Amino acid sequence: MEKVNLTQKFKLFSEHWSPKIVGELNGQQVKLVKLKGEFVWHKHEQEDELFFVVQGALKMEYRDRTVWVYENEFLIVPRGVEHRPVADEEVFVMLFEPATTLNTGNAESEMTKHQPDRI
Amino acid sequence: MEKVNLTQKFKLFSEHWSPKIVGELNGQQVKLVKLKGEFVWHKHEQEDELFFVVQGALKMEYRDRTVWVYENEFLIVPRGVEHRPVADEEVFVMLFEPATTLNTGNAESEMTKHQPDRI
Repeated sequence: MEKVNLTQKFKLFSEHWSPKIVGELNGQQVKLVKLKGEFVWHKHEQEDELFFVVQGALKMEYRDRTVWVYENEFLIVPRGVEHRPVADEEVFVMLFEPATTLNTGNAESEMTKHQPDRI
Repeated sequence: MEKVNLTQKFKLFSEHWSPKIVGELNGQQVKLVKLKGEFVWHKHEQEDELFFVVQGALKMEYRDRTVWVYENEFLIVPRGVEHRPVADEEVFVMLFEPATTLNTGNAESEMTKHQPDRI
């Protein structure tokens, strides 16, 4: 019931590709993440995923095309769809997704974050 | 899989207290709404509700206190908690809530929107 200020929360961490939980509701989580560089190709079998760009420009690659997402825009990636987020410059993103969502989906690797921190 | 631009979507309607659906995922909906004035006191028995302020300043009244929410901030109102949104000046809000959520919760009235438009 307390408000969350995104600017303040983004100041609390600097690492990339490591989502932080900042809110929970209805079995879903709100996460903040900083992106830079290329992530891994992956998909989520059971979870749709929303990317809201807070700062910067996110390039979302699908297998057949690319969608650029800018500040004040969001993109929903449906379950089962392979995607790869790419950030040529650093991007700040707010995610809405089920609490069960692994950042790397079906492509577990050293980039997988099994238990995101709450900040 | 197409992106949604909030600025463009907010240009598509002008009425207040009438949420518009702009996205759906995992049984949840993303809605945009313009607020001005005082809403009705209400609660949602089954749904937690997230208010993200896109423009303006939202005053959220609880029975025992008030929380101001500004741009780039969000507030989660847990299920069962009585609340009343108040907008002294016009406020643009993005909502994230279950598809079953009625805007007036348990306080149905002429302000209730049973079937929000998709825009």
